[in-house]
Amino acid sequence: MKVVRKEQAGKGITVTKAKIPEPGVDDVLIKVKMTGICGTDLHIYKWDEWSKKRLKLPVITGHEFVGEIVELGANIRHLQIGQRVSAEGHITCGHCRFCQNGKGHICQDVKIIGVDIDGCFAEYISMPAKNIWPVHDAIPDRYAAIYDPIGNAMHTVMAQPISMKTVLITGAGSIGLFAVAIAKSNGAEKIIVVEPNLFKRELAIKAGADLTIDSNNNDIREQIIDFTKGTGIDVLLEMSGNAGSLRLGLDLLSNGGTASFLGIPEREVPINIAEEIIFKGITIHGITGRRMFETWYQCQSFLLKDGKTIDPIITHTLSIDDIDQGFQLMENNLAAKIVITIES
Amino acid sequence: MKVVRKEQAGKGITVTKAKIPEPGVDDVLIKVKMTGICGTDLHIYKWDEWSKKRLKLPVITGHEFVGEIVELGANIRHLQIGQRVSAEGHITCGHCRFCQNGKGHICQDVKIIGVDIDGCFAEYISMPAKNIWPVHDAIPDRYAAIYDPIGNAMHTVMAQPISMKTVLITGAGSIGLFAVAIAKSNGAEKIIVVEPNLFKRELAIKAGADLTIDSNNNDIREQIIDFTKGTGIDVLLEMSGNAGSLRLGLDLLSNGGTASFLGIPEREVPINIAEEIIFKGITIHGITGRRMFETWYQCQSFLLKDGKTIDPIITHTLSIDDIDQGFQLMENNLAAKIVITIES
Amino acid sequence: MKVVRKEQAGKGITVTKAKIPEPGVDDVLIKVKMTGICGTDLHIYKWDEWSKKRLKLPVITGHEFVGEIVELGANIRHLQIGQRVSAEGHITCGHCRFCQNGKGHICQDVKIIGVDIDGCFAEYISMPAKNIWPVHDAIPDRYAAIYDPIGNAMHTVMAQPISMKTVLITGAGSIGLFAVAIAKSNGAEKIIVVEPNLFKRELAIKAGADLTIDSNNNDIREQIIDFTKGTGIDVLLEMSGNAGSLRLGLDLLSNGGTASFLGIPEREVPINIAEEIIFKGITIHGITGRRMFETWYQCQSFLLKDGKTIDPIITHTLSIDDIDQGFQLMENNLAAKIVITIES
Amino acid sequence: MKVVRKEQAGKGITVTKAKIPEPGVDDVLIKVKMTGICGTDLHIYKWDEWSKKRLKLPVITGHEFVGEIVELGANIRHLQIGQRVSAEGHITCGHCRFCQNGKGHICQDVKIIGVDIDGCFAEYISMPAKNIWPVHDAIPDRYAAIYDPIGNAMHTVMAQPISMKTVLITGAGSIGLFAVAIAKSNGAEKIIVVEPNLFKRELAIKAGADLTIDSNNNDIREQIIDFTKGTGIDVLLEMSGNAGSLRLGLDLLSNGGTASFLGIPEREVPINIAEEIIFKGITIHGITGRRMFETWYQCQSFLLKDGKTIDPIITHTLSIDDIDQGFQLMENNLAAKIVITIES
Repeated sequence: MKVVRKEQAGKGITVTKAKIPEPGVDDVLIKVKMTGICGTDLHIYKWDEWSKKRLKLPVITGHEFVGEIVELGANIRHLQIGQRVSAEGHITCGHCRFCQNGKGHICQDVKIIGVDIDGCFAEYISMPAKNIWPVHDAIPDRYAAIYDPIGNAMHTVMAQPISMKTVLITGAGSIGLFAVAIAKSNGAEKIIVVEPNLFKRELAIKAGADLTIDSNNNDIREQIIDFTKGTGIDVLLEMSGNAGSLRLGLDLLSNGGTASFLGIPEREVPINIAEEIIFKGITIHGITGRRMFETWYQCQSFLLKDGKTIDPIITHTLSIDDIDQGFQLMENNLAAKIVITIES
Repeated sequence: MKVVRKEQAGKGITVTKAKIPEPGVDDVLIKVKMTGICGTDLHIYKWDEWSKKRLKLPVITGHEFVGEIVELGANIRHLQIGQRVSAEGHITCGHCRFCQNGKGHICQDVKIIGVDIDGCFAEYISMPAKNIWPVHDAIPDRYAAIYDPIGNAMHTVMAQPISMKTVLITGAGSIGLFAVAIAKSNGAEKIIVVEPNLFKRELAIKAGADLTIDSNNNDIREQIIDFTKGTGIDVLLEMSGNAGSLRLGLDLLSNGGTASFLGIPEREVPINIAEEIIFKGITIHGITGRRMFETWYQCQSFLLKDGKTIDPIITHTLSIDDIDQGFQLMENNLAAKIVITIES
Repeated sequence: MKVVRKEQAGKGITVTKAKIPEPGVDDVLIKVKMTGICGTDLHIYKWDEWSKKRLKLPVITGHEFVGEIVELGANIRHLQIGQRVSAEGHITCGHCRFCQNGKGHICQDVKIIGVDIDGCFAEYISMPAKNIWPVHDAIPDRYAAIYDPIGNAMHTVMAQPISMKTVLITGAGSIGLFAVAIAKSNGAEKIIVVEPNLFKRELAIKAGADLTIDSNNNDIREQIIDFTKGTGIDVLLEMSGNAGSLRLGLDLLSNGGTASFLGIPEREVPINIAEEIIFKGITIHGITGRRMFETWYQCQSFLLKDGKTIDPIITHTLSIDDIDQGFQLMENNLAAKIVITIES
Repeated sequence: MKVVRKEQAGKGITVTKAKIPEPGVDDVLIKVKMTGICGTDLHIYKWDEWSKKRLKLPVITGHEFVGEIVELGANIRHLQIGQRVSAEGHITCGHCRFCQNGKGHICQDVKIIGVDIDGCFAEYISMPAKNIWPVHDAIPDRYAAIYDPIGNAMHTVMAQPISMKTVLITGAGSIGLFAVAIAKSNGAEKIIVVEPNLFKRELAIKAGADLTIDSNNNDIREQIIDFTKGTGIDVLLEMSGNAGSLRLGLDLLSNGGTASFLGIPEREVPINIAEEIIFKGITIHGITGRRMFETWYQCQSFLLKDGKTIDPIITHTLSIDDIDQGFQLMENNLAAKIVITIES
């Protein structure tokens, strides 16, 4: 089968051939129809510090997809051949105290497809049946293929009350943009986005932002204080991993506010614990992965109701043979979400 | 009347005379019977950087007390002369959106007695009636005098579920010690205390700690990992304001854990947001003051049930004339909580 | 001044004259511009059992209004003459443990204007300053006059997570209709309304309902099970006080669902505790009044963002001289919300 | 192997022989060492209405146990032969939306051992590996055998904040008695128990109750109002299934209180929704089963810390051959919890 594999250290990725995997008794084999390129895939493409430490090569990359079940493991009764499915890409141990308490997203022995084991940039992928998410008939492939990053955004937005709140989203990559659409759909009063790239700021407006600001401006703080008539923000959704944005966001948070951090800073960030956390009495949530499967149910509901609001965020659809072009578009900030079609 | 006043810049405090205040129509005049010395009072005594910035001299210091109402403002109907009372020392504006939402502890225009206006190291103090806390008959003066710091501990402990949790308390000053007793009384499974001072570690054991560790040790992390059989801690209560302890506590927090910060670091603290907050999916609460008056009701309940557990923490009872000696005991780490009797 | 007063037992209400009240030191005097007729006012008009037990006559009725401050009590500093204001009509004691904990809506010694003391169907009303809600410039009088019932709806909707939930609202009186608009604005996935009156069902559709059903139908259960593809509802908002609707709603609630009860049944309702509450593991909230002032802030946010969605619900605007006509329209189910203009 | 089987309609139970079950690939075979008799088992013994409707005979009864793994299914890697284990007796479907969201206790297609399929009153039982709970070395068999009902009590107590609350427990069967010990261990301020049986009231005192009242008394309400100095109770834990007790408990609940219902009423219970739920603004939780496995972790923590407090509640230890005597003791209210030893 055709696959996209990271074969060796250094920049780049290889479109090549591999053997179709054989599902175990508790697994299903899926013919992949469409997949999305994630920022994580770009890290691997560029072969940055994180990739060097984490990956053991070769590995088929990709972890977001929609496809069709073509084979069932011997133990599987509740799924059917021909079913259209996506899947949670975090394969949890199932036995640790987090898995046992419905908190698989913080499983202490997780494996991620496309990172730790072979992923979905391939014509076929075998997945544990427990990870499978049957896709609702009314949800088109282009949304179903990217349940994973929509879920990251959903998990971040839903980590605190969002209804009737003034929300600052720092970083308008595709997950930040999904967060704009999700916060809007769920009753946020005002949504402010800080982002350096003009193209992405324009997408943020299309997704429902009320105000966007270039993160290179010197007067961001003043603009937001002015826009909020002096009160500052109620909720910070940090999606950039940029230390300056994270610090700015905390600074703008009003007393009793909440912050959710999803963006991964590369280094330690100095925090003024006294002024920004203690005296203001704020709450901070660290966000990783998606809640299994509460987040998936929430995404289904959002996509059924307001799916069309994410159409502008899916800026490109490419064939798997052109995936290298996709990485270049992302590297040059010329794309938000790119989906890849896989045809045999 | 006799008062303890900070009269001029520099170390020290003056026992002197002042005019008895006159209560306004919405105030009550209280004859103070007993008061406590807080770490904040020691900062003012030592005249540190914070004191220099915050205080306008002269000011009568002290903010923890119990006394008896001796005069009622014209509008006051629900209190009586002769009633034994303590009082919340944060005088809130009453009109901001936090005050209007039952969150007076994060009022954006608060005044603190003994810091911003005259306090309770005095024979008499006038307080707004809305700040008054009538003391339950079964609670002795030595507990009622220190409702304020017990409340700081209560607010910190109750900011997250504590029942059946493994709790690390960093810093065993008097508030940290109260937190040990409160966590114990409310079902914590194991309580670990990290503190440099041997005397305070011994008090922590008396208050109910299961393990204490000298914060100067090199193997704190190993000891705690060993004690918890590899799982780390569920809850961090940071009471020291020490950057190293705060970082150690976050490092020891298990996935999905919670941290509450009460101790005030002097400088920014570098935080590994990715590893300590995001990937572990933890939640951090900044804690300031006491919830009005939920925390006070909780303290009353605790003191009625398990008040005796804080007796070892009240290490000294001094006369107001000997208050300077109290500050010296605190400065030399020879005391935990000191209460001061005021007799006319 | 002109007032609408319940002067004697029996059906009806009297438009008459009264002396302008004099505000106390902690009160403000308000010139009323617009007021709303509530279902409670209709109970008093009809002089039902509840009214007979509760009211001491004569009393000026009415508890929803917007007006302008024309006089300030001596102690009031934070409000100004000329300010446009509404007010919370529940005058709380301020001292009970509920008031002290930010839960004034369950104060154990509350007085309600227009019921226990003189209300706002009058040219002027004196209110405690602590009850005053300054109205945002961008919110027109016709919304500001009915903050009170919008707040009842908001309190009910916000008592549980509503985002991406399937919601059943039983009873489409004006509060039920506001609840439709509020649930829609805050991300409910599907909203179903059960209501006997065709006119109100049509208003429910205008307010955003996805499905309305006549409560006289025999197949309501089947219709809802069908509409929800067998899952039943996630959230029940009971607004009718009708025993049958309440029981139907509980029956339709899925495992783990939540119900909020606002409608007041006249008699005890037999509940199948085992099947409807225990085995399904549901949660029920009793809802009374509005959270002070969290609900008011939420209403302000909703009205600024989606206020126009309630325009169809305000079916009539009448002069105070025609208030009797308003009661007749309500009695005959020919109106949803009626607002009354008061001109001197 | 020796088993206790319900073989035919009518009162009674049979000690007989059966074939040792063969574990499937995802199961483990356990040699049972000790088991507990539950009230449910007594219902089956007596063959009441519920039993007639629910059970298909013959079935081996019993659902609470501790034992040792003696055989592993082919797929099982994380458990070992010789391991001492208990198990969750609710076998969930694993695929419904409740199972997928960490809420297996409200699974819509659950099977219960000893009720729907063969149970643990037997020398051996085969269980799905996902249901297995490894028992901590420091927890003795007599506690480990009854994790299931301790878990029911824990789930009920932990459904709302219990720290520093005044708690009424109606019904002091073994689960009610465990709830007393658990509430005490987790910081309840005062625990009141209403129960008709003197023997059980005495056990309630041993478990930590502050006040017990005979449910046949006429002045229960007055006694509790007096004991709580007029405030009523904060938390109701309804463990009796008795309509009168449930109604009494709601009546005594103060404004803003919470109730958790575990006891199963046989018939519909008339509830004064207006006075008891709405005007008081209370919250009611229906409780079923145990949260998987959060409740189990909580029980482990409780048993490690305060296990000895339940010793008085385990009133009898019998051999499996004498199980009929156990049922008679329970039927005559001469026992609280009975554990049964099973020796090959």
